[in-house]
Amino acid sequence: MNGSTPVSEIGERSLIKRLSGIFNVGCNPDVRIGSGTDDCAVIDISEEEYMVITTDMLHRKTDFPLQMTPWQIGWMSAAVNFSDVASMGARPIGFLSAMGFSKDTDIAFVEGISKGMDDCAKFCGTSVIGGDIDTHDELTITGTALGKVKKSELLTRKGARVGDKVCVTGFAGSAGAALHAIEQNIDVPDSLLNKLLTPIPRVMDAMELARSGAVTCMMDTSDGLAMSLHDLADLNGVGFVIEEDALPIQAELSEFITYDTDILTEFALYTGGDFELLFTVSPEMLESAQSVCYLNVIGEVVGQEVGTVISCRNGQNLTINRKGYLQLGD
Amino acid sequence: MNGSTPVSEIGERSLIKRLSGIFNVGCNPDVRIGSGTDDCAVIDISEEEYMVITTDMLHRKTDFPLQMTPWQIGWMSAAVNFSDVASMGARPIGFLSAMGFSKDTDIAFVEGISKGMDDCAKFCGTSVIGGDIDTHDELTITGTALGKVKKSELLTRKGARVGDKVCVTGFAGSAGAALHAIEQNIDVPDSLLNKLLTPIPRVMDAMELARSGAVTCMMDTSDGLAMSLHDLADLNGVGFVIEEDALPIQAELSEFITYDTDILTEFALYTGGDFELLFTVSPEMLESAQSVCYLNVIGEVVGQEVGTVISCRNGQNLTINRKGYLQLGD
Repeated sequence: MNGSTPVSEIGERSLIKRLSGIFNVGCNPDVRIGSGTDDCAVIDISEEEYMVITTDMLHRKTDFPLQMTPWQIGWMSAAVNFSDVASMGARPIGFLSAMGFSKDTDIAFVEGISKGMDDCAKFCGTSVIGGDIDTHDELTITGTALGKVKKSELLTRKGARVGDKVCVTGFAGSAGAALHAIEQNIDVPDSLLNKLLTPIPRVMDAMELARSGAVTCMMDTSDGLAMSLHDLADLNGVGFVIEEDALPIQAELSEFITYDTDILTEFALYTGGDFELLFTVSPEMLESAQSVCYLNVIGEVVGQEVGTVISCRNGQNLTINRKGYLQLGD
Repeated sequence: MNGSTPVSEIGERSLIKRLSGIFNVGCNPDVRIGSGTDDCAVIDISEEEYMVITTDMLHRKTDFPLQMTPWQIGWMSAAVNFSDVASMGARPIGFLSAMGFSKDTDIAFVEGISKGMDDCAKFCGTSVIGGDIDTHDELTITGTALGKVKKSELLTRKGARVGDKVCVTGFAGSAGAALHAIEQNIDVPDSLLNKLLTPIPRVMDAMELARSGAVTCMMDTSDGLAMSLHDLADLNGVGFVIEEDALPIQAELSEFITYDTDILTEFALYTGGDFELLFTVSPEMLESAQSVCYLNVIGEVVGQEVGTVISCRNGQNLTINRKGYLQLGD
């Protein structure tokens, strides 16, 4: 076609921005936050509460390595969505799944997926409340998760202030390293593989953090730490200094990578799939946050002119690149 | 694999029943109606209101004939979901779309789809509030629509009583006939083609009907009139006598089929895609319903022992078969 431009040429973030321009929610009185900025859309449902809602499409080629059991496929499809609900500080209240599979799929396979979804929903304190089944050449699952949150406790990506501490839950880089290993047919310890195949959405931590009032902004690290930091930097007009020494590396990962610290830092910054919480906390509230959640302080919010940098062990400050897990490349 | 059974062997309705058994929502206090029975799940959000939510996966091979423009693909993806919201008598309050397309897809194509979605959402009084983009070999769109409804006005599939009048909006069979025609490369008038490619979700009619208090049960006819009648018959423990003469056939369809009444009845009963409302009304409330919505009375609710039958022009009563549009056959 004359003058046509493939989506791969502009990348995921730019395409989302263009589509958000079409989906103008300015005049929708039910909507507090619309598409394109946060992990969930936010809907006004009553005097006291918001509902948050998110949807994510996963499929065989990109999201379900052949090592995954049906149960893990189901768990993953729910977990990625509940992680988005968690990012807003909300309590999960339901999950819907639209599943597409070929007609010759074994019923036990579909039931295994459903059991995994159900178990993840129950783990998050809720259940699977609806869905759709469809025939599809490639196994495709679109999950939709819902949550409720008190208006005063809603957390969004916006709110970071210079001087705030940058915190994450759990470890960084484990899921990415495990994916890399299985793609290269390298044996990988279960403790790493589980991080990739059965991510735990940080729902309880997020609700406690929301209640604490300590958090100034939050999102999840599904696309990797670097990409998430850049998203927060853009939205808040700030920079970040991250301490290389403070990156939370799982012991089994250090061992697996035979303590090559450069590669460990690469994995921690530039691979996705960890589904941890990344958030900022004002210094005077740090103790409150620490009292409700096991967190790692990895750096500080700085002025935009500093950029998003990592303070290395050798004393150098290096720019953190805007790269990570993206569907269309960027 | 030993002892494996493909999903095609048990069919869509049976598979949904099996999965609904896994997704037990009995203990979820937020949920009023869960998966497997109604067009939407129903969530308790406040003293006065329920939220309804539905999700539907569509894709190129099954749902988007090549004749469809990108705008129509987007419209359709939203319309099928808003039709489910309408079935519950709810006011639409938002739409989310998860879109999967290949990397070489033209940006203008994706923007066209998005514009169609947005226009359908605006037509339904709301907007696109969120979503996800994904790479996928086959164009795949999962929509999720949300609505709010006063608790006293919620309509469900349950509530039909013997003696109630059976009503539908719009026409039956137009979309199915148009699909049949384009599959056979037969020229089809635009007035029929539009019914297939740009279905109008009956949101306003449904809200008015809900407010009228006249409706005892409701669903949409997305899988065809026959299948919908059987679903209502099973759930309500009733039968239906439908008058062949009363089936609402579009004039252009009669002309197109050259007035072959047997074939017209086949299309009206056994093809899907019309997205009209099918509902029952107590006889003493029929006028109230008629005063808020243009409807066709097509029959009456009878005892279960009568079955679901059509009273033909020649005086015979024939059984209406349990068949229509289903993803896995039944």
